[in-house]
Amino acid sequence: MNALPTPLPRKGTLYLVPAPLDFGCDEAPDLQSSMPMGTLLVAARLTHWVCENAKSTRAYLKRVHEITPLTLPIQAQTLLELPREVHKKGDHTGNFDARPLLDAALKGIDMGLVSEAGMPAVADPGSSVVRAAHDLDLSIVPLTGPVSLLLALAASGLNGQNFAFVGYLPQEGAERVQRIRELESLALKTGQTQLFIETPYRNLVMLQSLLQTLQHNTRLAISSGLTLANSSNASASVKQWKQKPVLLNNATPAVFAIGR
Amino acid sequence: MNALPTPLPRKGTLYLVPAPLDFGCDEAPDLQSSMPMGTLLVAARLTHWVCENAKSTRAYLKRVHEITPLTLPIQAQTLLELPREVHKKGDHTGNFDARPLLDAALKGIDMGLVSEAGMPAVADPGSSVVRAAHDLDLSIVPLTGPVSLLLALAASGLNGQNFAFVGYLPQEGAERVQRIRELESLALKTGQTQLFIETPYRNLVMLQSLLQTLQHNTRLAISSGLTLANSSNASASVKQWKQKPVLLNNATPAVFAIGR
Repeated sequence: MNALPTPLPRKGTLYLVPAPLDFGCDEAPDLQSSMPMGTLLVAARLTHWVCENAKSTRAYLKRVHEITPLTLPIQAQTLLELPREVHKKGDHTGNFDARPLLDAALKGIDMGLVSEAGMPAVADPGSSVVRAAHDLDLSIVPLTGPVSLLLALAASGLNGQNFAFVGYLPQEGAERVQRIRELESLALKTGQTQLFIETPYRNLVMLQSLLQTLQHNTRLAISSGLTLANSSNASASVKQWKQKPVLLNNATPAVFAIGR
Repeated sequence: MNALPTPLPRKGTLYLVPAPLDFGCDEAPDLQSSMPMGTLLVAARLTHWVCENAKSTRAYLKRVHEITPLTLPIQAQTLLELPREVHKKGDHTGNFDARPLLDAALKGIDMGLVSEAGMPAVADPGSSVVRAAHDLDLSIVPLTGPVSLLLALAASGLNGQNFAFVGYLPQEGAERVQRIRELESLALKTGQTQLFIETPYRNLVMLQSLLQTLQHNTRLAISSGLTLANSSNASASVKQWKQKPVLLNNATPAVFAIGR
């Protein structure tokens, strides 16, 4: 009788695990306010991670454990950090090969990809890992959680059937003004809502730039502190923005949107 | 002594309530797999709704009730449907004034906005209602739930730091080819991932169009059945797509993405 061939091990699945949006904020609302139990149960079951930052991932897992016990103590879990070059240059510009980070999945172990806040690989590092998973023929399962961009878009009252997210605007004055004009022109001409973000403590500077640069009838929406108790979602024409008192927390992450 | 002025009633808040993505699908997974308890608790508390479709909203509320009891029986709730013109023409092109739909909120009653699947006002009707709420100076709170576009983007391995969603492509052959070329050119030139959707039962026709039109090295990602047990997330170069057997459910809603 011939020996049976050794079966190939089933490959692990890569789960894209969202994190709450309160990273770096003073508040830490109940995880279940913005995270489905289905997502928390998968997060609690996984033992191998690729993450933006190991420390914040451990803090997140500690919060998950308070709701549903982890399979393995945090100290015994494997956490691989994305290298600095990916944080800085983006996932694809440096030709970073993330396949070695997924070795455990090739051995049949399910893995999680997680960033500091929100959905990994959306306005955050991680897409190189997802691409590597496709190249290795792993199954990929994105899980539901809060995504600040989409919450902001829904709350903006701007066109949600045609929109773009363009990341950060240039910090330098003249370049920034030029970029704002470019995005406004695109939004007014095509009706495509343009979303962008700013680093904390620069919200008011960004607002000032916008009010100085945009046309009176352009509509501007700003969401900050999404999913937190002190969230705000404002949307009005630039003319109206200039007339009303501005309530904008400079410290919490904000999403800006312009449209018609 | 002068009579005190009658205090103005506190205005109600408009909650943007996501719905599960299984609308029109054979499966109906446990609501808690993709819906945070925080969202379900608000949905169960509300009694006044603006909705895309009253029948599907009632079906959703029935499922919410199985997890956490509704404040008011469904039959006693107030469900106002968005008019057909908004479904057809979009929220803003027809100058539809949604303010009368929010009368209850002016009287201090919290209201919910809900669409048939996913996040209202994102790739779905509802932004006119959100805009009206801003015009009426209501507080607006977007709640977390599944958003197929974002799940698909995360699972694509394509650039998630610069992306656009452009809705449906033209159905007519030559127009469609032209639009696909336009989107590919934009994606390759700027690095901005381009996402779009197709109506059920046209997924395979769309795939054929894409494979016939796109360049070999362009990357194409297709997600279908998101949040369902039989979901699939595939991402590869057009050349690879042409070489491998295509597993794509023609009936479940799909999101397409192209990029480099």
